[in-house]
Amino acid sequence: MDNPMPPSQMRAEIAEIPQAVDRLLTQGGADVAAIARVIRQRDPAFIVTVARGSSDHICTYLKYAAELLLGVPVASIGPSIASIYGAQLKVAGSLSLAVSQSGKSPDIVEMSRSAGAQGALTVAVTNTPGAPLSANSAHTIDIHAGPEHSVAATKTFVTSAVAGLLLLAEWKQDRALIRALRNLPDHLDRAVAADWSPVEQALDGFDSLFTLGRGPVWAMSNEAALKFKETCQIHAESYSSAEVLHGPVSIVGDGFPVLCFAAGDAAETAVADIADRISAKGARVFVTSDRAQAAQAIPTVRTDHPLTDPIALITSFYAMVERVALARGIDPDTPRHLQKVTQTT
Amino acid sequence: MDNPMPPSQMRAEIAEIPQAVDRLLTQGGADVAAIARVIRQRDPAFIVTVARGSSDHICTYLKYAAELLLGVPVASIGPSIASIYGAQLKVAGSLSLAVSQSGKSPDIVEMSRSAGAQGALTVAVTNTPGAPLSANSAHTIDIHAGPEHSVAATKTFVTSAVAGLLLLAEWKQDRALIRALRNLPDHLDRAVAADWSPVEQALDGFDSLFTLGRGPVWAMSNEAALKFKETCQIHAESYSSAEVLHGPVSIVGDGFPVLCFAAGDAAETAVADIADRISAKGARVFVTSDRAQAAQAIPTVRTDHPLTDPIALITSFYAMVERVALARGIDPDTPRHLQKVTQTT
Repeated sequence: MDNPMPPSQMRAEIAEIPQAVDRLLTQGGADVAAIARVIRQRDPAFIVTVARGSSDHICTYLKYAAELLLGVPVASIGPSIASIYGAQLKVAGSLSLAVSQSGKSPDIVEMSRSAGAQGALTVAVTNTPGAPLSANSAHTIDIHAGPEHSVAATKTFVTSAVAGLLLLAEWKQDRALIRALRNLPDHLDRAVAADWSPVEQALDGFDSLFTLGRGPVWAMSNEAALKFKETCQIHAESYSSAEVLHGPVSIVGDGFPVLCFAAGDAAETAVADIADRISAKGARVFVTSDRAQAAQAIPTVRTDHPLTDPIALITSFYAMVERVALARGIDPDTPRHLQKVTQTT
Repeated sequence: MDNPMPPSQMRAEIAEIPQAVDRLLTQGGADVAAIARVIRQRDPAFIVTVARGSSDHICTYLKYAAELLLGVPVASIGPSIASIYGAQLKVAGSLSLAVSQSGKSPDIVEMSRSAGAQGALTVAVTNTPGAPLSANSAHTIDIHAGPEHSVAATKTFVTSAVAGLLLLAEWKQDRALIRALRNLPDHLDRAVAADWSPVEQALDGFDSLFTLGRGPVWAMSNEAALKFKETCQIHAESYSSAEVLHGPVSIVGDGFPVLCFAAGDAAETAVADIADRISAKGARVFVTSDRAQAAQAIPTVRTDHPLTDPIALITSFYAMVERVALARGIDPDTPRHLQKVTQTT
């Protein structure tokens, strides 16, 4: 092109992910461990999560992690339950986890306050410890991400996910997972550099696609689909790889792009199998696994634990999606119709 | 057209919805009340739901209803927790609600069995009381829908939703809601006949759209988006009307169709407001409310209770979407790539 777009802030913030995670672990680790001790003493019967947008994908990730690690069921609560309907949930004895980069959206603040008033132990995960969400929560985890200027959240997404996972690991006192988290920055250095250009090329001429995943990594599929919409104006939709055959697959035609996220966990073979079954329907399918036959494997950074694999995968995805946006002539820092802080009631 | 497609089985099954609901209430009401008494005595601390596809949208609807009516938090559990990961959830003292028309999908059966083994009170909502799901559940609610031949579920969706709502109403002994449910068949007669042809026309030339809702009716938005994909090969995606401004709105261009579901409840004004804000971005927006200014109101059947309004809305939607499929030359009874019973592990 004659006039290529300049490097985006989103690109700079993606490049900063390994360093931001390292900063969180170094500067924030002790605080997270202290909050985990409080939670362990309370022994919550269940967890409720409160979030919107990308932050809600983090909650989906933490839901699977909490259910798999600790066996504690997690309910995602629509903030409207408090903010619109004024209903009082019976959440005494539970842990309420709210995730918000800005800590400002009125409905998230109100739902969190209401959960605390009903007897839940409230924890906020935020990049803005001075914001109203913290003032309405018993404990605050600062993700130490530093300023994020791009409207599309990347480093705050990754640091929030790591902070939440560290909280669960400390709660369980799971040494293998804590060690894997400490080793994560090095893996993320490689993840930022992974070459997903075959996916970029397959998107050419398509305005619609599916992202798939199963288990914890399904949350990253959700996040990827949102980023495709937000930064590339591509209608990507995320499904559980088990759900996609219950109806959605009907829109799959020849060359329809499908990006399957598989972690190195018990679901990997099932995801690879679905990737192959959708390939057989004519789709152009990519998968972060070498276990598929027809679907194309893409470079995949594995970490030291199945639960940290999804973090590396979304980092590689971010590095790719920024290039897709630029190739479409879209500035990923200022998506159409969007602002950095979305206030909903 | 020279050779119009014949009436579909889906059309016949939609027309049968009012009668099927009446049959469920008449023949199944006493059983539902008896199971509700057992649940009331147990006084579950929370509810877990187990379902896929359209049935999972029913669980989303019942989640909002349970949280608003009873204040009991509801966690939707991914069946993979048991079937793939073999994790044991701490669900003693909870109610586990599984919804499956066929009662056959191995992962739904396994998750339900596992919840029971961990001490949950298990209830199955199904059209096939003799199937494995019932054999692995403490109680079964027969939805009395009769045979459903179209791959796209319609009357089993509505009767399952009514059965679940009746269970919650009986649990709470909410006389106003029980009365509203008894009056529902008459409203559904009108809902089947509602004229949503302006929406049909606006879809012409578009292969991508959003459906929106908030609170209980958001579940119907989810169901509508799935049916657009399944029966019309249109890439419809559902969002909470509060979520859509957190990123997804970026794909909205001129004339982009948006269908907003609003019930006659506390969220109606908020949904109408979002409908107007998305209209201002160039979208062609329809809303089931007369409270919007720029978005176009479509004929809306209101029932005797805010929680039964969503049932009438999805019935009107079904009547429309079948016509959209036929207009696109697609037989809605046999969607591309799909089978009636999807078995996932």
